Amino acid sequence: MDTLNRAVSAIGDIKEEFYAIAQKRLDNLTKPPGSLGRLEEFARRLVAITENKTPVLDKKVVFTFAGDHGVTEEGVSAYPKEVTPQMVLNFIRGGAGINVLARHAGAEVVVVDIGVDHDFGQIEGLTHLKVVRGTQNFTKGPAMTREEAVKCIETGITLANQYAKQGFKIFGTGDMGIGNTTPSSAIASVVTGLSVATVTGKGTGISDDSLRNKIKTIEKGIKVNSPDAKDGLDLLSKIGGAEIGGIAGLVLGAAANRIPVVIDGLISTAGALIAYVIEPKVKNYLFAAHNSVEIGHKAMLEKMGLQPILDFNLRLGEGTGAALAMLMIEAGLKIYTEMATFGEAGVSDEIIN
Amino acid sequence: MDTLNRAVSAIGDIKEEFYAIAQKRLDNLTKPPGSLGRLEEFARRLVAITENKTPVLDKKVVFTFAGDHGVTEEGVSAYPKEVTPQMVLNFIRGGAGINVLARHAGAEVVVVDIGVDHDFGQIEGLTHLKVVRGTQNFTKGPAMTREEAVKCIETGITLANQYAKQGFKIFGTGDMGIGNTTPSSAIASVVTGLSVATVTGKGTGISDDSLRNKIKTIEKGIKVNSPDAKDGLDLLSKIGGAEIGGIAGLVLGAAANRIPVVIDGLISTAGALIAYVIEPKVKNYLFAAHNSVEIGHKAMLEKMGLQPILDFNLRLGEGTGAALAMLMIEAGLKIYTEMATFGEAGVSDEIIN
Repeated sequence: MDTLNRAVSAIGDIKEEFYAIAQKRLDNLTKPPGSLGRLEEFARRLVAITENKTPVLDKKVVFTFAGDHGVTEEGVSAYPKEVTPQMVLNFIRGGAGINVLARHAGAEVVVVDIGVDHDFGQIEGLTHLKVVRGTQNFTKGPAMTREEAVKCIETGITLANQYAKQGFKIFGTGDMGIGNTTPSSAIASVVTGLSVATVTGKGTGISDDSLRNKIKTIEKGIKVNSPDAKDGLDLLSKIGGAEIGGIAGLVLGAAANRIPVVIDGLISTAGALIAYVIEPKVKNYLFAAHNSVEIGHKAMLEKMGLQPILDFNLRLGEGTGAALAMLMIEAGLKIYTEMATFGEAGVSDEIIN
Repeated sequence: MDTLNRAVSAIGDIKEEFYAIAQKRLDNLTKPPGSLGRLEEFARRLVAITENKTPVLDKKVVFTFAGDHGVTEEGVSAYPKEVTPQMVLNFIRGGAGINVLARHAGAEVVVVDIGVDHDFGQIEGLTHLKVVRGTQNFTKGPAMTREEAVKCIETGITLANQYAKQGFKIFGTGDMGIGNTTPSSAIASVVTGLSVATVTGKGTGISDDSLRNKIKTIEKGIKVNSPDAKDGLDLLSKIGGAEIGGIAGLVLGAAANRIPVVIDGLISTAGALIAYVIEPKVKNYLFAAHNSVEIGHKAMLEKMGLQPILDFNLRLGEGTGAALAMLMIEAGLKIYTEMATFGEAGVSDEIIN
């Protein structure tokens, strides 16, 4: 628990004065005040998060955490769980959506085996930090022990600390795990207080019948485990997943290091929500990449007061939305650092009315 | 009229078979079908527009057309019209928002003086294609003659033809012109049939009183000129502007060359709408960059059946939203061309239910 406790106690508040510093420069750039909308918001937030008047985003990384889920026994996913390790190998070879979009965004991809039910041996290109070989079926008891949940979170925190030391300036989160929209919707329901049906979608693309089964499965999991909505570790261990815990840890570690973190879709947001339940201040360090097709996503973002950046009907995960959103956040920073001021450009900043 | 007539007659239909070709590959990539949402739509559309199974977007360019407006006499803008040439010089020096965002997107910026009320001499870095030295005040008669309107459009078409020949693969449109939300809202009102008040916003940031004056000014301009909603040249000459005409021409020329064109905010969309009135097929070649703060924008996009890509509360113009959206369109293409297929990656594509 030491790593977790240290991270939580290191998470500071955002100082309003940094928003004001950023705003002053933004209002002096050759454009009508506020006319670059959310790009200006991104710049203000980067200045305030980093407490740096001239932040840089030269080193970017997306962490894709992979894990399996015992609850797939209940037929909640359209794909067999063997697809999780197959996709991990695809990530390592560079052929997946996240590889393509991270390259486009100039970000590295770190693929973390935190809970895949497969023995990868000592394969290169994979970050081997397996905590469990898949979780247990949460309709029959807790998905993980509390100790395993702590270990997942601390794995994420340790990665955040390592990559902060290596000079990475912005993190993205991503996930791979057949069945992982099921624990994510379970977390969404318990933390937001909304019904399971309200926050459960079709994941990779199941039928209406399967969706009804998925909702019943989640309802059963919540009933069997009675997770405590105010205890992040209880939620994660009982109805969560290893990759969700890794993401929660990465978010806590990013906030502790004053590093902005871009959360992807449903599963990443469930991880961020676990971090938020542990320490609500993390929300100030989060950028919500996009508005997922998955219906539970929006409810979790609203709970944390986050407004998504993109709305592309994405539902792939992996960190794909996070990589795309990084490009937009970086655009906001470039506006802030590269645009000429009225004085430099000899443009009149006198407003008539 | 020859250049215009040739362009219009060269604009072809989109062949459905190219959507099917693109869809087949998209469905074979290592992801659940449709899970990359609008990125997949962008890829399909690029294949269909270019009639090329493997399109590339290696050369990108944003055209920023600048012009002045006689109607600024009526006090419709927050800034004096001297800001138009000052901003043109800022573009040439690389310090404006469009320069920063086009660099970020890997696109060139072509700054076109099509109607600025200023003598730039033979200054380098500016494309000198002045048709008028500012338009006339449209509350007192037509903004331009019909001949000038044709010349503006043909200027845009000629640029499109030149840059198509140079191998540019995607165009963006942008504008600079103090007062130009006024003719744009006038065009929006006449073509959509909505009241002026419904499609008129605060531009660069005027007061409520000034907004009321702006609405009255536009209503007067429409009343004085009685533009024909079904005649693009009549609309452009009576209540338009030189940069709006240049953009209309660029859109027509892009479509004639099967080049996708990303339209920016209110002013660019007014230009695209003029092109659409002339030849409705242009809509198939358009990508709507973003959903502007300006309220008339959405009505015009709906008229053409276009769904904006970004929603960042932008209201700067210049082509800034177009540059940002290009990065997202390119992301869609990279997904299509760079992702591994199920077969290549050894990933199971068997779906259980």
